[in-house]
Amino acid sequence: MPEDVVTACVLIIGNEILSGRTQDTNLRHIALQLNEWGIRVRHARVVPDVERTIVDTVREVRAQYDYVFTTGGIGPTHDDITADCIAKAFDRRLVIHPEIAKLIQSRPVPPDVMAARMLMARVPEGAGLVGNPTGGPPGFFIENVYVMAGIPAVMQGMLSTLEGKLRGGAPVRSRSVTVFLGESQIAAPLGRIQDRYPHIDLGSYPFSRDARYGTTLVMRGTRADDLDAMLDEVVAMIVAAGAEPQDIGSA
Amino acid sequence: MPEDVVTACVLIIGNEILSGRTQDTNLRHIALQLNEWGIRVRHARVVPDVERTIVDTVREVRAQYDYVFTTGGIGPTHDDITADCIAKAFDRRLVIHPEIAKLIQSRPVPPDVMAARMLMARVPEGAGLVGNPTGGPPGFFIENVYVMAGIPAVMQGMLSTLEGKLRGGAPVRSRSVTVFLGESQIAAPLGRIQDRYPHIDLGSYPFSRDARYGTTLVMRGTRADDLDAMLDEVVAMIVAAGAEPQDIGSA
Repeated sequence: MPEDVVTACVLIIGNEILSGRTQDTNLRHIALQLNEWGIRVRHARVVPDVERTIVDTVREVRAQYDYVFTTGGIGPTHDDITADCIAKAFDRRLVIHPEIAKLIQSRPVPPDVMAARMLMARVPEGAGLVGNPTGGPPGFFIENVYVMAGIPAVMQGMLSTLEGKLRGGAPVRSRSVTVFLGESQIAAPLGRIQDRYPHIDLGSYPFSRDARYGTTLVMRGTRADDLDAMLDEVVAMIVAAGAEPQDIGSA
Repeated sequence: MPEDVVTACVLIIGNEILSGRTQDTNLRHIALQLNEWGIRVRHARVVPDVERTIVDTVREVRAQYDYVFTTGGIGPTHDDITADCIAKAFDRRLVIHPEIAKLIQSRPVPPDVMAARMLMARVPEGAGLVGNPTGGPPGFFIENVYVMAGIPAVMQGMLSTLEGKLRGGAPVRSRSVTVFLGESQIAAPLGRIQDRYPHIDLGSYPFSRDARYGTTLVMRGTRADDLDAMLDEVVAMIVAAGAEPQDIGSA
């Protein structure tokens, strides 16, 4: 991979995703947002609320990717163990962050409720904060690991505060075109085009719509001129196959 | 974990999920279906279309979980490398499966299209087939690894053909109840209830609806009597907190 590519791993923490109770949407949101900032999600894992698993996984993936973004497990209940696990993964103590504590203590509640809320003030020693525009306690980061909430609206708010604060490479751009042909009908020439543009990822995504088979071709890379040249070749290939290129797009 | 728990890892293969272009829904469907069959998804990974990554990941996770279910990468184009990777992970040759070949060859198409389609007849030597009720080429399995399509409708059809063919433990049942209280307000008694039922997974899922904060509590386990007893305690705890238990459910 070229040197200017900055990579990320998304770590989704939560039994509710693995049980099927909850449909994760955080991975997609994070991937799209990071693309814009020139960071490519190259890996994602979904792990249960099990301390050993989370600790080992954080250690493993943070060594392999430039950034790790976690979602889930930072609330006030017994199954919210992410902060503990991140601290253990870094061999650091959990400490009360004064800024979070002040925020939490500014809202008077009964002592047992306050005790539960104050669990959300704990961060690994030395961690920085990830803002929470929705008004609740912030997330945190330590070295290359960013810890965010699991609730999509809160996670999206937290992620938005990181704009301009992460090291990004060249943003990934894309070109796409759809054709009402099956994948097999264009597989051979498509493979030849891919071979000519090794730095562009050419994906082929079949679908069925209104009882017709179609394929969307997506080119992803950082260089607009190469993307445009490759798109021209793909379009010409579709025309040569006797079909009509549709929904040509760029992003 | 009790001995009768049968575990699975879901391996989602595809750049389109990691780029954010496509929202994965296969993990949730597989998790819900396997729950019914007494198999628990304990881990999931999303990996790019990179041979080394797929091969290493398959080797790693199939040693750790009873079953591995993969989705994606079994079509006829250059980016469909799953069959190759599974063969390499098992150190086996890729061979043409006669049953798939017969199916593909039964539909006359031009030679180059046939050549592309025949790529979908390749399976690791010794693999069995996973049926495809949608009419396309089947998936396959080898030892504890089941290889399915990425298109949700096709994957769902393939998975359905495995009913009765997998080894399952006791099905996971659940009880749930919702309360319009924040998590912090019930965190302490909730933790005490969890401590009394170590074999039941008590999850706490906060939400915001109609400008009110609420929490859904979900108990998951295999023993109905324990689940019912735990639900009774959770409901009593909610009443003691001065709130009203809502949407009590079991599945």
